[in-house]
Amino acid sequence: MSPTPAGPDAAPAAAPGAPPARLDPAVAARLKQDPSGLVAAVVQQHGTGEVLMLAWMDEQALALTLTTGRATYWSRSRGELWRKGDTSGHVQHVRSVALDCDGDALLVVVDQVGAACHTGTATCFDGRDLGAVVGGTP
Amino acid sequence: MSPTPAGPDAAPAAAPGAPPARLDPAVAARLKQDPSGLVAAVVQQHGTGEVLMLAWMDEQALALTLTTGRATYWSRSRGELWRKGDTSGHVQHVRSVALDCDGDALLVVVDQVGAACHTGTATCFDGRDLGAVVGGTP
Repeated sequence: MSPTPAGPDAAPAAAPGAPPARLDPAVAARLKQDPSGLVAAVVQQHGTGEVLMLAWMDEQALALTLTTGRATYWSRSRGELWRKGDTSGHVQHVRSVALDCDGDALLVVVDQVGAACHTGTATCFDGRDLGAVVGGTP
Repeated sequence: MSPTPAGPDAAPAAAPGAPPARLDPAVAARLKQDPSGLVAAVVQQHGTGEVLMLAWMDEQALALTLTTGRATYWSRSRGELWRKGDTSGHVQHVRSVALDCDGDALLVVVDQVGAACHTGTATCFDGRDLGAVVGGTP
């Protein structure tokens, strides 16, 4: 189901220096991937709780994220593994990763270096409010 | 592209009391939906910053969330609109909604009543840590 090439050559090309990684079968069994083999990854800043971005992971990206200390995703637009910060310098150091109750979403808590968003804003949601009507308080 | 029935009868059936809603065309034009007509919605607790859950919205769910003060999603498992809390009582009162830089993810900030997760945990990620190796600090 994974869109990642299965060969051991795939990971180093996209994530220089990172060894090929195999996901713990016990974790893999809990994943509920979409038809493209991906799960959503919510990325949150450690300490402040800011939601920085939403990205996507296949099994290889999750295995690398769990074992290397560097957040690694699957780029749907480029169709390749993407270790955050390799191009921009805006690295994400992993603090924790949790899988949700349904197995289709990850919460990746990181220490973000620089701006999380490729547009230069601190998060991908900054300045993009949709003006929702505010509901009643509980 | 939306999986929601287009007729005006659809919303009241799934979200009792909520009027049919049409999404602002300017917002609709910014959405980048997946092949099922959905965008991911990261749901965060107002004030604490806790990430509560990840859900999905079609245009109708987003329109209702933006205009009614109540967080409303598209249930992929049930194939219907789902106004959070109608069955469980665990309502989400909307505080703000933002769309990300790519148009394929929403950040919905809410005041959560009761547990966010259908399993009874406060968030869908609680107690589900995957034991990641911690990266270096910046």
